[in-house]
Amino acid sequence: MSALSSQPYKGTRDYYPEDKRVQNYIFKVWQTVAERYGYEEYGAPVLEPLDIYLAKSGQELAGEQTYTFTDRGGRIVAIRPEMTPSISRMVAARRQELPYPARLYSIANFMRYERPQRGREREFWQFNVDIFGVDDITAEAEIITMADAVMKAFNAKPEDYVIKINNRKLINFMMAQYLGLDVIGAQLMVKLFDRKNKISESDFIDQAREILSEDADDGVKKINVLMSAKTMADLPEEIRNSSSVTDVQELFTQLERAGVKSAVFDITLMRGLDYYTGTVFEVYDTRPENTRSLFGGGRYDGLVGLFGAEPISAVGMAPGGTAMENFLDVHGLIPELKSKTEVYVISLGDTKRSASKIASELRDQGINVELDITDRKLDRQLKTAIKKKIPYLLFIGEEEVKTETYTLKDTASTNEQKVNFADLLTVLKSKK
Amino acid sequence: MSALSSQPYKGTRDYYPEDKRVQNYIFKVWQTVAERYGYEEYGAPVLEPLDIYLAKSGQELAGEQTYTFTDRGGRIVAIRPEMTPSISRMVAARRQELPYPARLYSIANFMRYERPQRGREREFWQFNVDIFGVDDITAEAEIITMADAVMKAFNAKPEDYVIKINNRKLINFMMAQYLGLDVIGAQLMVKLFDRKNKISESDFIDQAREILSEDADDGVKKINVLMSAKTMADLPEEIRNSSSVTDVQELFTQLERAGVKSAVFDITLMRGLDYYTGTVFEVYDTRPENTRSLFGGGRYDGLVGLFGAEPISAVGMAPGGTAMENFLDVHGLIPELKSKTEVYVISLGDTKRSASKIASELRDQGINVELDITDRKLDRQLKTAIKKKIPYLLFIGEEEVKTETYTLKDTASTNEQKVNFADLLTVLKSKK
Repeated sequence: MSALSSQPYKGTRDYYPEDKRVQNYIFKVWQTVAERYGYEEYGAPVLEPLDIYLAKSGQELAGEQTYTFTDRGGRIVAIRPEMTPSISRMVAARRQELPYPARLYSIANFMRYERPQRGREREFWQFNVDIFGVDDITAEAEIITMADAVMKAFNAKPEDYVIKINNRKLINFMMAQYLGLDVIGAQLMVKLFDRKNKISESDFIDQAREILSEDADDGVKKINVLMSAKTMADLPEEIRNSSSVTDVQELFTQLERAGVKSAVFDITLMRGLDYYTGTVFEVYDTRPENTRSLFGGGRYDGLVGLFGAEPISAVGMAPGGTAMENFLDVHGLIPELKSKTEVYVISLGDTKRSASKIASELRDQGINVELDITDRKLDRQLKTAIKKKIPYLLFIGEEEVKTETYTLKDTASTNEQKVNFADLLTVLKSKK
Repeated sequence: MSALSSQPYKGTRDYYPEDKRVQNYIFKVWQTVAERYGYEEYGAPVLEPLDIYLAKSGQELAGEQTYTFTDRGGRIVAIRPEMTPSISRMVAARRQELPYPARLYSIANFMRYERPQRGREREFWQFNVDIFGVDDITAEAEIITMADAVMKAFNAKPEDYVIKINNRKLINFMMAQYLGLDVIGAQLMVKLFDRKNKISESDFIDQAREILSEDADDGVKKINVLMSAKTMADLPEEIRNSSSVTDVQELFTQLERAGVKSAVFDITLMRGLDYYTGTVFEVYDTRPENTRSLFGGGRYDGLVGLFGAEPISAVGMAPGGTAMENFLDVHGLIPELKSKTEVYVISLGDTKRSASKIASELRDQGINVELDITDRKLDRQLKTAIKKKIPYLLFIGEEEVKTETYTLKDTASTNEQKVNFADLLTVLKSKK
């Protein structure tokens, strides 16, 4: 038999301990922010009926991007490509019993067919944060404040990122009233705006003309006005006067009060998924070479109702692990992450049983201990401990066993000290 | 359009916050034990090429139990049904660079086609713990000590569980030398022993006779001797004299030294998977009504070599979440698990902005705060907080804002106190 490949499945990634430490750091920051705001963790299955994505996720995501197959019972299922339909299903199933506002979060894996590239993987991890049962703009303000809190918790500076905000109702008004498009035309124009960072300006204008068809010159002029608007004050008066503008203004007032300094209004922001019904937002890296959004979210009031339950308002966001890791990496924000193992015990000479006993006593005291049981030469044991980034080495030789005094070495310096068991505990506990 | 079903996919489970708390408690105990012994966390993809299970996992697992399909690129893939082939693949891919002994753990989700029943779910979570690069029995002693440490960490008493231990080499000797079976017969007999708790004694004997064919009477007599052996001393002399017995004896010596009191030798323990090459073990609930193993593990020295790398010795185990939760449940070992939210802030009257400011200041001090922003009646806000099992309520009314003295209520008692911000912090931090 020829050997099996040791490579992971296309577009997926193996997380060795050093990679997993970075992922765990990201997960921990997410979790801390969620819990700081009173959100509680839930979990949902990795496999779902395909149906739940067909209704509202948008053609691309429910179609060619989804891993779908027929199970042995003839059910058409999908490996979840996103969490929003799952959590909406779960809320619908307990619509009456859940305490509201329901503040919920999860950290889970998803799969999509993507052409593998930097920042895009076929299997990826996402932090999903959702609030159910709050109709007014305070819900959006809280979720966007948390988006900002996530960036701050990763030590990003205000100039490193920007939170672009728009509103689907405003978009609908703009498409129908301002640009005079019909439903199909409006849909096409939304998709075109959504792609605008991925195509050239002239391609954008050409495709916009095609959608506008009649009065294309006038329409292009109007689009240019929109594209160049830096704040809400720059927008044409008829848009400024539309009713959803009040919501947007109130949102910015609340964000300012909450200390969010990185939020800006952007009338050209669309956010691809079909289920959004109000506010949408996306967080961007400010470096011009990274034009893709880091993550986003918005209001999706219609989703729970699809599952036969009384509709309930919902706002959420979903930061992803890969884009976040790349952001931290290029901005130099990944901290040095040590092993969780606190001490590596090296047995020298005929001391295995004593070394094992000391390791066990340290563990009973809550210390994380790795015991080398390989009988290898000292330098190879040392190399293993250093490669694993374990902060302390403890040498147990025959003399040490006799005197009950051991040699403790700090791997980050040349410090070495003789310690008895009580001292040893004190040193190790002080570094926790 | 008719409503979508709000039920999860067949045999899978939604984890609402109260369920997720229990799961997180189990995960936390697993993680603590792994880290106490110096194991480091890794992650692997949820999708793998089907190939990696076909070679060694055994027909049932790689065949009818696996979720398998062909991807858009024509690759035959499987949602992982277990972790051992994935971690073996990962070790093979970095055979030269990894520091040995490599002590690795993960907590991940898996899928298998199972008839849904208590303790079996189609999606399940497992804790995988593996040590690579230790040839001798100290590796088995460590893993089984950790299996015991897991049970102890869950507060199981020694009489609540038993760790049954056997050895594949001993099994092979028993099948070939003692029972005189050929390769096919030996395989069939191993599978039959593996099923012995699931079928009646007379069915077991009937099926054993079929496998034995010639000299069935003599064979059945020999099997009865094996089945009634309580310790190694009760085994027939020719088995006791076989070379692998020394390994088993040394293992028991080391386990005793490590304080493992629940280990017993059981010649009839097989452990289903094909890849085991030496020691095998399974942990059982001692309650007679639960005959299924809680979890198990063993030595599988041949797996890494299948991926074209130089072979390396390996020992591992894989406790599962569902069986563990059931065990804890029936033994009354699930502790009371509160919300991670420490205080629920209730705004009364026109105090929303002040309440929001106090919530934000508490968060800056590391307190987990949920702020009610619903404007609902007081009793409904109270009900929400109690339903979520949040330990403290903080009332902020207009009088409170004026005097900067707030009412803090302990939800577990009738205690209520007036506090300023500094007192509030002191109380909340003291309960962390």
